[in-house]
Amino acid sequence: MATQNLTTGLVRSDGPEASSGTIPHPLDQLTVAEVNLAREAILKARGNTVAVNFRSIFLEEPPKKELSQFLDLEHSGKVSLQTPRPARRATAQYDVVYGDKNHEYTESCVEIASGMEVEERVVDKVHHASLTTHEFAAFTEACFASPLYKRAIAEFDLPEGFVITIDPWPYGGDGEIVPRYTQGLCFARDARSGNEDSNHYSYPLPLIPVMDTYSHEVVRIDRLATGGKDDGLTYGTHKKNVLDHCSPSEFIPELLSQPLRSDIKPLNVVQPEGPSFQVNGNLIEWQKWRFRVGFNPREGATLHDVHYDGRSVLYRLSLSEMTVPYGDPRPPFHRKQAFDFGDAGAGRAANNLSLGCDCLGVIKYFDTVLTEADGTASLAKNVVCLHEQDNGIGWKHTNFRTQRAVVTRLRELVVQFIITLANYEYIFAFKFDQAGGITFETRATGIVSVVNIDPGKTSPWGNVVSSGALAQNHQHIFCLRIDPAIDGQKNTVFTEESLPMPMSKELNPYGNGYEVRQTPIKKSQFFDASPMTNLTVKMTNLSKLNPISGRPVSYKFIPTASQLMLAHPDSIMAKRAQFAQHHVWVTKYKDGEFWAGGEFTNQSQKETDGVADAVSRNDNVENEDVVVWNTFGLTHNPRVEDWPVMPVEIHQIHLRPADFFTANPAIDVPGSTDTVSVLAPGSEGCCESGEVQKAASSHLQGAGPDLDPKSNL
Amino acid sequence: MATQNLTTGLVRSDGPEASSGTIPHPLDQLTVAEVNLAREAILKARGNTVAVNFRSIFLEEPPKKELSQFLDLEHSGKVSLQTPRPARRATAQYDVVYGDKNHEYTESCVEIASGMEVEERVVDKVHHASLTTHEFAAFTEACFASPLYKRAIAEFDLPEGFVITIDPWPYGGDGEIVPRYTQGLCFARDARSGNEDSNHYSYPLPLIPVMDTYSHEVVRIDRLATGGKDDGLTYGTHKKNVLDHCSPSEFIPELLSQPLRSDIKPLNVVQPEGPSFQVNGNLIEWQKWRFRVGFNPREGATLHDVHYDGRSVLYRLSLSEMTVPYGDPRPPFHRKQAFDFGDAGAGRAANNLSLGCDCLGVIKYFDTVLTEADGTASLAKNVVCLHEQDNGIGWKHTNFRTQRAVVTRLRELVVQFIITLANYEYIFAFKFDQAGGITFETRATGIVSVVNIDPGKTSPWGNVVSSGALAQNHQHIFCLRIDPAIDGQKNTVFTEESLPMPMSKELNPYGNGYEVRQTPIKKSQFFDASPMTNLTVKMTNLSKLNPISGRPVSYKFIPTASQLMLAHPDSIMAKRAQFAQHHVWVTKYKDGEFWAGGEFTNQSQKETDGVADAVSRNDNVENEDVVVWNTFGLTHNPRVEDWPVMPVEIHQIHLRPADFFTANPAIDVPGSTDTVSVLAPGSEGCCESGEVQKAASSHLQGAGPDLDPKSNL
Repeated sequence: MATQNLTTGLVRSDGPEASSGTIPHPLDQLTVAEVNLAREAILKARGNTVAVNFRSIFLEEPPKKELSQFLDLEHSGKVSLQTPRPARRATAQYDVVYGDKNHEYTESCVEIASGMEVEERVVDKVHHASLTTHEFAAFTEACFASPLYKRAIAEFDLPEGFVITIDPWPYGGDGEIVPRYTQGLCFARDARSGNEDSNHYSYPLPLIPVMDTYSHEVVRIDRLATGGKDDGLTYGTHKKNVLDHCSPSEFIPELLSQPLRSDIKPLNVVQPEGPSFQVNGNLIEWQKWRFRVGFNPREGATLHDVHYDGRSVLYRLSLSEMTVPYGDPRPPFHRKQAFDFGDAGAGRAANNLSLGCDCLGVIKYFDTVLTEADGTASLAKNVVCLHEQDNGIGWKHTNFRTQRAVVTRLRELVVQFIITLANYEYIFAFKFDQAGGITFETRATGIVSVVNIDPGKTSPWGNVVSSGALAQNHQHIFCLRIDPAIDGQKNTVFTEESLPMPMSKELNPYGNGYEVRQTPIKKSQFFDASPMTNLTVKMTNLSKLNPISGRPVSYKFIPTASQLMLAHPDSIMAKRAQFAQHHVWVTKYKDGEFWAGGEFTNQSQKETDGVADAVSRNDNVENEDVVVWNTFGLTHNPRVEDWPVMPVEIHQIHLRPADFFTANPAIDVPGSTDTVSVLAPGSEGCCESGEVQKAASSHLQGAGPDLDPKSNL
Repeated sequence: MATQNLTTGLVRSDGPEASSGTIPHPLDQLTVAEVNLAREAILKARGNTVAVNFRSIFLEEPPKKELSQFLDLEHSGKVSLQTPRPARRATAQYDVVYGDKNHEYTESCVEIASGMEVEERVVDKVHHASLTTHEFAAFTEACFASPLYKRAIAEFDLPEGFVITIDPWPYGGDGEIVPRYTQGLCFARDARSGNEDSNHYSYPLPLIPVMDTYSHEVVRIDRLATGGKDDGLTYGTHKKNVLDHCSPSEFIPELLSQPLRSDIKPLNVVQPEGPSFQVNGNLIEWQKWRFRVGFNPREGATLHDVHYDGRSVLYRLSLSEMTVPYGDPRPPFHRKQAFDFGDAGAGRAANNLSLGCDCLGVIKYFDTVLTEADGTASLAKNVVCLHEQDNGIGWKHTNFRTQRAVVTRLRELVVQFIITLANYEYIFAFKFDQAGGITFETRATGIVSVVNIDPGKTSPWGNVVSSGALAQNHQHIFCLRIDPAIDGQKNTVFTEESLPMPMSKELNPYGNGYEVRQTPIKKSQFFDASPMTNLTVKMTNLSKLNPISGRPVSYKFIPTASQLMLAHPDSIMAKRAQFAQHHVWVTKYKDGEFWAGGEFTNQSQKETDGVADAVSRNDNVENEDVVVWNTFGLTHNPRVEDWPVMPVEIHQIHLRPADFFTANPAIDVPGSTDTVSVLAPGSEGCCESGEVQKAASSHLQGAGPDLDPKSNL
């Protein structure tokens, strides 16, 4: 039986138990003691007449104004034990249970110093908190105890030795307002081997039970179509032997039908002098970068107060939301639309990482604090990892006259976390480089979602990736929240486009000229990627000019022109995810406005208080505290090669300085001095570095000696 | 004085001298002996009455029909010493010089077996061979000897101790047909330190000498505008002290004005059991991949006969062409348009790579054969490198019920070469992975091209990256040539788009459905990237169906929607590079049709016999031997951070199997067993892999035990 482990928070380096006697940084996550204190405050405030089911207890980030004042002092070295700090507060999310039926989802703010609840907010019943793992466990139990579900299962003649296993899912968006529901995708698992990790996903059952989340009653069994391309929306034979044409799709090594490759030799990353980073609590310093890493149940890892060489770049960076709508129009698949951050929570779903499996080299892990169902705190290890990696050549130039080459490596610092959402995995990484760049990388992997399809049929709504298993077409649409602080918080967002010019004798006589047009974003608004005009988003501080170019200092990125939400604009799927309908949103900063798809996505009818509503305030965003939201994604029409576990599908966004510095910030990176690399057998030993560069590059030499203008005249 | 080293060819593993007595593979590049033999044949054929200036001697790849017959035998294990092979031939490119003035550019085919010239083709004078390094050297000499040039230089009052240095450039496209010309960008170099690698690019002089390439006469000095945004196209003060406002921009470590970073600790890649690849001559085998690597003066490294697990994927893969048009409309900058493959030659410009600087780990190098100006061959080392690298997680899935995680690394095999073209560098890499994917990666680095700008001015045509140095806006537009052989040579290209569907009660009642539409390309044609419909290009063998999905076997890629040629369609720049005006071109294979921008790009007036002309044949390309050309690029409006040497700007194209295999081909990659990674200081020692995965992942656990349908009923 699973326990209710819901709450996270990044643990300070002194350990959760050791925190007494030290003053936490305002961005330090709650310790075990603080979570327990918040729990006590809530139990006390609610009294003994009601039951409290906890969901999450985590740090409430201080208001920006207060936090910024503290950070300014910190950066100027003026923080002492006496320095006033923003009030330290916990957010507690929990259900108050009145009798059997009446659950009131409640959010409270607890002041840590006083141990008192200072705010309480009962959420109306139209909005639903995200799912918790104890709700998932309860779902499976309720199904297995339900006569309705058991009768449905009994309609099938399962192969001998198979058991039923269920993946609970959020209920998704429906046309009508319903109680808090949970649904589940059902599979059979071959239990004959005794190996519980035999892959059940290749045996999909064509039914979805729906449970009233609070009453634990299975209220309905939805029957799934199993037809092919000419069978319409509701066709399903639902033969008793519905799994007979399915076949095993194992990926666990001991169950694999083929031997593992034996010809991949070890490739080790060795850092004999240790890492180049320093970590102190949640503060990370590396190669002129300095930032803090946070962690919360919804977003997972977050970055704060990002500086390079003492200059502010970002106030906060996080992945805000993602939605995964499925494109199979056959009901009830229209309710297969997960909001993995708002419905589930990336922090709650974070993997515990293990050394040498999830990254190479010298690795620093960060832990988090979980909250049990009763509100007590416990520690979870290694939810975030930090390491360096080599990403090839960073910059190179060879003087063709002398054959002198200077070449540097591109070293990166990676903050990574990995989440598992039932069948699927995402690997998220924030990467810092020595040239002032920050890359946000998403890797999609795991097991694609499949449903049963009749023998021999194919479907326009997906691809048969294993006999009887249709992997449905779907999209993954993410939204990265960028809170810039380019040399300060008053920033302006520009679009920069490269545009053709007419031919004209005066201005463009040969037609090669092109215009680079900057357009300031004056009011909060959205716009789309435009790769054919090379549309670049610049986040600019108009009050600071680059002394070399005379242009205002900026960071920039090129928004990826990935496909936006395909669902019809009038569909509930589209209405629930306004953020998924444009690539870039520019809003004015507002405390607590973190979620692109709105605070409550679970069973939402439409996006509420998400980024579209924020834009509709029509705020002035010129020379203001702005937030930039970047939506990107991938349309995933599965290949057979994505089965049974898909190779990573990688997407990257690059934030890069643009006239922020006075030169390439990596120009002081020493040339490669690697002395460990060796020649492969059969390569001739002519490779002593200097010698080769001089001797063999002579075919590049193409200019005579330089001219001394004085001596030649 | 530089020598004329023009010709390349990949050397067989037995070394060029050891080739006698073995039979070369038809794709083996010419040996030293073979180049010398071809030289003899040309000298003999031309006779004693003329002089011959050699440009290049290299392997003529056999016609596809002949080569394919041989490769088929080879793959079926039937090749013996007696097997008939395609005739081995050399292409020799050279000028025949009649007296002082009359150069006839000539291309000959020499049969190696007979040592006889078998074809001769004198090229008309409208078309120009690519530039050679001896022409570059002659250019500088001619300038320094030219009274016209010396008078122009004398107009300037250069800083004490500075010398003149010139970067020769192709003349570019002009409105009128002119003789073979070379132009040069002029700079001054601070020679006071005695360090010849002091960076001259920060001292640009506002003049461009133009030389008649054959007569060596400097025919003209073009004066350059040095004005700012309101100064029109021709404004130039050309004050004597034109360099006084320029400042040093060093990048060589010993000249750097700041200390090198001292806090970047070593990160070594160690492969204690050696590499996982095998190399035999030009044959490379790694992780079920098998292919041959070629090398020629124009394209650099080329891949041939690419197979995975015994199945054909590609016949040939190469970067075909690239053009770099500059967007500054002030004459003569309209002639700043390089075709780096056709005007110069990537193979000729290839760097000689050195161990541990250009890649890490266990490295295999490939050499090439150069040809001197007199036609004799000499060896150049290390123009291509081969190594493995780790690219993070390859696939991962965690069973949330048991917390069992399987995670594999993404190992890649990299074939890399690097070219230097005066100020600029490109790093090209073909990367193979274990999941059947091939990535072509371009990294742009080096020094951006600058011209002089008056003190205190800014310009719409570029960015001031150093005092007095305007880095002009420009584009890099590449074309990758993909000759697919998806399970055979008869292939069909499809576009696949994901399209919204109308809402309809019958077909799409909730509006979440979307259509995936496949469209075959029937006649040779071009089309553009369409990211908003997720346009994917599939190269398909219609005669082979995937046994799982029932769909024909394919490889696919998503063409990047990068900006196409910005120059006006009526401009010479655009006419010279039709290939740069659409993203994807599909043509019917034709022997020798390798060059997207046409064979002769140097001083071209328009693209001739390039990919646009190939498309205009209107060939049937359905179930045919097709070639797919993918154009991509970057619009580069320089940042100050791109100076003095720019951080790499990376672009990748991913060729991936799509229903080519019956599952993820990497599913048999063993889980990571790295035992070398270590904890950073301060990380707690809780990380014994299995234990952590079990103990700390409990917050993921969200389902009870599975249901045995029998026992529950």
